[in-house]
Amino acid sequence: MTDRARLDLDNYLPYLLNRVGVAMVQSFTADALAAHDLSIDMWRVLAALWNRGDARQVDLAAMTSIDASTISRLVTRLVRMGYVTRGRSKTSSREVVVALAPRGNALMQRLIPIARQLEEAASAGLPARDVTVVKRALRQMYGNLVNGKAPAR
Amino acid sequence: MTDRARLDLDNYLPYLLNRVGVAMVQSFTADALAAHDLSIDMWRVLAALWNRGDARQVDLAAMTSIDASTISRLVTRLVRMGYVTRGRSKTSSREVVVALAPRGNALMQRLIPIARQLEEAASAGLPARDVTVVKRALRQMYGNLVNGKAPAR
Repeated sequence: MTDRARLDLDNYLPYLLNRVGVAMVQSFTADALAAHDLSIDMWRVLAALWNRGDARQVDLAAMTSIDASTISRLVTRLVRMGYVTRGRSKTSSREVVVALAPRGNALMQRLIPIARQLEEAASAGLPARDVTVVKRALRQMYGNLVNGKAPAR
Repeated sequence: MTDRARLDLDNYLPYLLNRVGVAMVQSFTADALAAHDLSIDMWRVLAALWNRGDARQVDLAAMTSIDASTISRLVTRLVRMGYVTRGRSKTSSREVVVALAPRGNALMQRLIPIARQLEEAASAGLPARDVTVVKRALRQMYGNLVNGKAPAR
């Protein structure tokens, strides 16, 4: 095998990331979401709304990395479950704005402590400074990927 | 909002991880997979086979974090496309073993340089020592999540 074609998965960042991401989703689904009949994408929409208050569907798509047509479907289901509301924007009557309903707020109050436990369980045994490096690196990686290749240093 | 119910997504590890993971998949799909009509999960199966030679479907599921029934369907499609073969294990005739076909090997030789470029593009501007910390941390996080909570230090 030529060196050019080497791919050591145990040292390949996209592989390592995906593996942790899937394990996190499985753990959180079992510990928090399954009992409420929520999918991970529904949770992501609720968490985005919790973070920033009401939001247009296009903003929810950007915040959650879920495509816009899926967001629309998820919001419809969350409205039906009573967790969110769809309404007109105060600034533009042509804009639809999504917000947490009181029932959604109550749900988030119950789920967020479990979400934080997940982060702690994943980071167990890691020095706090390493966790800081990881978070900073992930923010920069996202910027690199979304804004195109960063200039060479 | 009580502190217990705070959830700052921009500092929440599962959120940061998912965002980078989705951006990586989108970038790699556009740059490498779309032209070959491959999904990211099909790529993951091919990469696992490239890494370890032939494998049982249950091993592919463990390596790729894809559930076993989906693996079976993906392998069927990859066989049809001529990239992999299904055959009997040499050690047990009851075991089905999947391997890269020559056409799959040739494909991987073309895709791996693009996969490595993706990792470089994502890490652009990051000190090498930070990338090392990130990879080590991701390995430990995976162990923590899969093996249950690590003992307190």
